Amino acid sequence: MARALALAEQAIGLSDPNPRVGCVIVDGRGQVLGQGHTQAAGQAHAEVMALRDAQARGHDVRGATVYVTLEPCAHHGRTPPCCDALTAAGAGRVVVALGDPNPLVAGQGLARLRAAGIAADVLPVEHPLAVDARELNIGFLSRMQRGRPFVRMKIAASLDGRTALSNGVSQWITGPDARRDGHAWRRRAGAVLTGIGTAREDDPRMDVREVETLLQPRRVLIDSRLEISPEAKLLVPPGRLLVYHALPEPGERGRVLADRGAELVSVAEPRGKVDLAAAIRDLGQRGVNELHIEAGYKLNGSLLRSGVVDELLIYLAPMLIGEGRGMVDLGALTALTQAPRYRIVDSRPLGGDLRLRLRPEVPA
Amino acid sequence: MARALALAEQAIGLSDPNPRVGCVIVDGRGQVLGQGHTQAAGQAHAEVMALRDAQARGHDVRGATVYVTLEPCAHHGRTPPCCDALTAAGAGRVVVALGDPNPLVAGQGLARLRAAGIAADVLPVEHPLAVDARELNIGFLSRMQRGRPFVRMKIAASLDGRTALSNGVSQWITGPDARRDGHAWRRRAGAVLTGIGTAREDDPRMDVREVETLLQPRRVLIDSRLEISPEAKLLVPPGRLLVYHALPEPGERGRVLADRGAELVSVAEPRGKVDLAAAIRDLGQRGVNELHIEAGYKLNGSLLRSGVVDELLIYLAPMLIGEGRGMVDLGALTALTQAPRYRIVDSRPLGGDLRLRLRPEVPA
Repeated sequence: MARALALAEQAIGLSDPNPRVGCVIVDGRGQVLGQGHTQAAGQAHAEVMALRDAQARGHDVRGATVYVTLEPCAHHGRTPPCCDALTAAGAGRVVVALGDPNPLVAGQGLARLRAAGIAADVLPVEHPLAVDARELNIGFLSRMQRGRPFVRMKIAASLDGRTALSNGVSQWITGPDARRDGHAWRRRAGAVLTGIGTAREDDPRMDVREVETLLQPRRVLIDSRLEISPEAKLLVPPGRLLVYHALPEPGERGRVLADRGAELVSVAEPRGKVDLAAAIRDLGQRGVNELHIEAGYKLNGSLLRSGVVDELLIYLAPMLIGEGRGMVDLGALTALTQAPRYRIVDSRPLGGDLRLRLRPEVPA
Repeated sequence: MARALALAEQAIGLSDPNPRVGCVIVDGRGQVLGQGHTQAAGQAHAEVMALRDAQARGHDVRGATVYVTLEPCAHHGRTPPCCDALTAAGAGRVVVALGDPNPLVAGQGLARLRAAGIAADVLPVEHPLAVDARELNIGFLSRMQRGRPFVRMKIAASLDGRTALSNGVSQWITGPDARRDGHAWRRRAGAVLTGIGTAREDDPRMDVREVETLLQPRRVLIDSRLEISPEAKLLVPPGRLLVYHALPEPGERGRVLADRGAELVSVAEPRGKVDLAAAIRDLGQRGVNELHIEAGYKLNGSLLRSGVVDELLIYLAPMLIGEGRGMVDLGALTALTQAPRYRIVDSRPLGGDLRLRLRPEVPA
């Protein structure tokens, strides 16, 4: 199963919006007959890839044990059900790291296999490999179970929590290793989101550059009044920029942006701002599993206050800045009990910097 | 030697201003004949304690090997030279983790032992136990070599670098484990220093409470205009509060404070503030090896800018505060190259918090 999980990781930057799944077929003596992982959407799933691999190597998989990191699908999507493929191939036993949270599958895969006389087991929920399988597909699980992406907020700052000097200078607070790692997290995401403040000040591209990828995440902008410049670099990379705004009518500015390839969606809340929770639900409907946020302190604060942030990804550079931009705008708290609290999931050095991952003490 | 070092650690909170030294005497078969560590100033050093221990156990130490974490003293201080005690006892060999940096000793101990026909060796500088021995006495080494204490600045803050809410509330950002650890670092110090801002706002005692200690560090206040209240808790614990000020004449306020047991020292710099570098040199002359700083963002900034800070001890609580007090006031930097940079010496979870120790990239 550990090998199947390692294969599943190879589906990062490839299989979205489908889950990252790996599959290894093993005979009675433990010899690997075939292996594979999910391909791009609409193409073969992990089980089919593993069966094809076994066939290509001339192996007979009848009676073999199939290790797969997610419950095989039982429904006709863009590909036929994997359960049927495993049954047809004569698999003897199927071991699954994680039940499928997709309501269209939910236990049906296992039931269908058992109905065909195949022994089918799921790892205990607390098994380390089950935990890893869940983490790898945390976004897919979130979309299936909550109808919205898993939201990860990335912040790079000095030790004293400054993301830029008072004059706006922020390049570079963290080092090259931290920046490359940040791109690896972007690559995991179905979409990368920023706000009009950052777009105006830093004019970022928000694509994946420092690591290789087969898929580029969707670029998303929160821009209540459609103030983004038609010359902004966000409009440059391939793929349409998705802009959430709060105007009743996008008007001339909207037409110019649409001409430049932007897709505009109006999701206003009563105060005339973008309804962030609605925008994030909409991204879920568009198949975004993990949403990666790189924004300024205002939008960061609004997102935190709207309770949609599932993880903080913080890079701390070992320097002190003093006066400067903060990480988040939460207004003026009057008691420490109002401060959002997290638990540290992971903390590690990265280059000379420190990387922290944190999740809300009370899950979002 | 590892055992000698563990003994030396027991001299923390006991031997100041003398170094923390441990000693183990071993016979040819590796059996421990006697062991000990430095006692309170004016009392026995580690070597003498180990010799006494061996005698009390009825062991003959002639020809034995003596492991000692610091070069034995060769001078008459408040106690006679340890070299002579080892020679008189007939030690066969002496192994030292670290040469003594005290100019009164500096190699003389080893020379004196060798002159008496005893084999005497020092561990290589990069030996892990030599490194540990140096870290344990980093303050003593600093005072001997630079004439001033090793200066450690402690800061407790939120993830986004806030030490208090805008309204001043700061109790408690970090948890009980971090606070107890902070007291353990206070205990290591010969003096704990704060500023008038913190004294006025938080009215702290600045003594060691959450861990046991035989010695309380000296309490030190930076208070340019002698504005500390005679009712301040800083004046309460046993031992005199040392106040550095910048007044030409302490006047009536000074007399009141002196009556309350404070010792006043004027070290002004031209702008009428306390000359921090001079105050710290003065603390060195008073025998302070490690100086522990717990101050507000203004004094922290002044200390950092005066280039006297050797280590940052930062506790980060996994919460976000947004608006609030910062860690340090460094004025408005205009380029990132002006930001003081550090290297992370140690990073570890502590309760739910994170503890970081950092030292200047370019040593102070």
